[in-house]
Amino acid sequence: MAGVTDRAHAEALDAADELAGFRTRFELGDERHVYLDGNSLGRLPLATRERLHAAIEQWGSELVSGWHDWIDLPLRAGDALAALLGARAGEVLATDSTTVNLYKLVCAALAARGAAGSALVTDRGNFPTDRYVLEGIAHARGSELRQFDADPVHGPVPENLAACRPGDIVVLSHAAYRSGALADMAALTAAAGERGATLIWDLSHSAGAVPVDLRGAGVELAVGCTYKHLNGGPGAPAYLYVAAERQAALRSPVWGWFGQSEQFAMERDYDPVPGIARFLAGTPPVLQLMAVEEGARLTAEAGMEAIRAKSVALTALIVELHDAWLAPLGFELGSPREPARRGAHVSLRHPRAWTFTQALIEQRVTPDFRGPDAIRLGPAPLYTSFADVWDALDRLRGIAARDDLPDAAPARVT
Amino acid sequence: MAGVTDRAHAEALDAADELAGFRTRFELGDERHVYLDGNSLGRLPLATRERLHAAIEQWGSELVSGWHDWIDLPLRAGDALAALLGARAGEVLATDSTTVNLYKLVCAALAARGAAGSALVTDRGNFPTDRYVLEGIAHARGSELRQFDADPVHGPVPENLAACRPGDIVVLSHAAYRSGALADMAALTAAAGERGATLIWDLSHSAGAVPVDLRGAGVELAVGCTYKHLNGGPGAPAYLYVAAERQAALRSPVWGWFGQSEQFAMERDYDPVPGIARFLAGTPPVLQLMAVEEGARLTAEAGMEAIRAKSVALTALIVELHDAWLAPLGFELGSPREPARRGAHVSLRHPRAWTFTQALIEQRVTPDFRGPDAIRLGPAPLYTSFADVWDALDRLRGIAARDDLPDAAPARVT
Repeated sequence: MAGVTDRAHAEALDAADELAGFRTRFELGDERHVYLDGNSLGRLPLATRERLHAAIEQWGSELVSGWHDWIDLPLRAGDALAALLGARAGEVLATDSTTVNLYKLVCAALAARGAAGSALVTDRGNFPTDRYVLEGIAHARGSELRQFDADPVHGPVPENLAACRPGDIVVLSHAAYRSGALADMAALTAAAGERGATLIWDLSHSAGAVPVDLRGAGVELAVGCTYKHLNGGPGAPAYLYVAAERQAALRSPVWGWFGQSEQFAMERDYDPVPGIARFLAGTPPVLQLMAVEEGARLTAEAGMEAIRAKSVALTALIVELHDAWLAPLGFELGSPREPARRGAHVSLRHPRAWTFTQALIEQRVTPDFRGPDAIRLGPAPLYTSFADVWDALDRLRGIAARDDLPDAAPARVT
Repeated sequence: MAGVTDRAHAEALDAADELAGFRTRFELGDERHVYLDGNSLGRLPLATRERLHAAIEQWGSELVSGWHDWIDLPLRAGDALAALLGARAGEVLATDSTTVNLYKLVCAALAARGAAGSALVTDRGNFPTDRYVLEGIAHARGSELRQFDADPVHGPVPENLAACRPGDIVVLSHAAYRSGALADMAALTAAAGERGATLIWDLSHSAGAVPVDLRGAGVELAVGCTYKHLNGGPGAPAYLYVAAERQAALRSPVWGWFGQSEQFAMERDYDPVPGIARFLAGTPPVLQLMAVEEGARLTAEAGMEAIRAKSVALTALIVELHDAWLAPLGFELGSPREPARRGAHVSLRHPRAWTFTQALIEQRVTPDFRGPDAIRLGPAPLYTSFADVWDALDRLRGIAARDDLPDAAPARVT
């Protein structure tokens, strides 16, 4: 039997992979290219290409009457997402960006609590836009922004919420963008709830690759993006989740005509629709919502359980090859070693990570880099083979073993 | 020489139309279909179809590295729009929806004034989402919302702003969505400024069909949509304008990573970029932004002066045929009679407008209806012929002259 460092081992895993057939459902381009950045931007599903082409023609031929189909898209795409997130139909809405959706939910939660003294709480290592949203709202309200230091590898734990008080709003990511650590959603939600705080989850780095059980975990509010493991395309609309029981009490701060009851009876004051659609603001991006719906359908077809099983096996192979090949070359694992605590990507730390990233790209491997020292490898289960992972790690060890590799030029920071 | 009620008159106008060639730059579908609702959703430009197809393949092949091209799209599309709006490069940003952009600018203006007592002011007949945005912000802040009654045909005039006080924020539409009346942008901006109020313009119903001179009129802030006369497609991203001189003093209430300086140096507090990009929030909808850029380019190629000249001639033909055919049948002109005070659409009022609208649709004419009694006809200059207008009015007079036309079923109100 082949050992983990033999390519035959990876090939055997591919031969037994029940999701292997999904690879051909995506545009693969150059087959020699190893793409391990589905955690930044997922690949183009072939069904989405067809759907977008049809959507363009629908615009061209149906014109304004196309709205008979488009008007419910944020709800329809939301329902398709809900099925992947442990939410019910009518609890998820696809619209706007993660940033705008988080802003809406934080403001809505604050207004519902009516607690002027509420603090906004997050992990200092949380994804930047989440922190910025909270910083902006705290600035506008003169509220306290409290950022705690979670374990950089394992992420936030209930003890990090010990200082929470009634009325506080906490924002955490389910999977950490840097380490990939998976937070214990149920335990953290309960810990916040026991202190009277409201916890809003950002699912951007987990949804579509890790099973999420929002209702099972007692979650009230969540947001997330669709262009990573949900393969919605560049800048695809994001989503928000509001538990059915909370919808009546919450109102978006952005009152817009798509959230208005009897939208086209225009001579009235604002009176939001009863359901999740009250969190709509302006006209939603119809074409890109169709891509969100297609991406969610494809994920549902594969099934979250099978996706997670393969994802764990893919990241386990990275960890094993790291231990065998890279640790002796000065690498350090920046992600949890226990599979249950890992999301769908693995962070490999090395002081020369930036230079190695550039060399990998030259060798037709796409990882991504998070400063100062992490190479992130996100093997999206629907289209990444075990051989892809083996090849990427093999090239990385070859690069890292060179003693003549010059430092890469610094990143252009936009 | 043919009189206005002869089709030959319309045909002669078409023969002399210097923009006639632009019609073939759009997907026209069934050529017998008369589409007069470009003021709701513009047609699909052929160049946009090609661009969107290429964008889909760019996603498929370049994957995350496509961001080298995409990262500046909100600014590039904004610059293309700026050229149509009398703004400078770097003063317009394409992103989010009109609703969200208006929310951002109103909050930014309020925060910059620091005036707790500021009132929010608008025309009671302004487009619903504009009113709702103000209503929501007034509700959240406990501010006064003051809605004045403008003339229903001619729209707001400087006298309507007489009650404004320093710190007030006024929101007006350049072209009224119902009557099409064109507001005097320079006079109203000056009237607000003299009272120390800030006037934010909504250009949704004028941009792309009516010349707009934001800098010439001394406008500080504006928003607008791109799916009407700018042909950006269903749910296309909207835009916002902030005069260069005001950018440093204003901050979006939604702090997000696309507005952050050195976006990918992630371990920092929020520190917005200096220019208009500080009004970006989350990841913008890349595919649909490309359609915005294409639509703006096509409009620029035709030229705003030629577009306006044809638009005035098209709406003049509607007014003339109204007078000749429809007024005797009980119609009333719901739009200004003076060409300089009209935007790009005409409102025809009749108690049975809803029933006539349905009958027009059956006869392959698409107008739109605004309750309780207005048929709106928006002959988009780039692809509407004078014969289209003649045919539509001819069918409408036929419908209105029938004494056996049953009432249409009431609208389904979403």
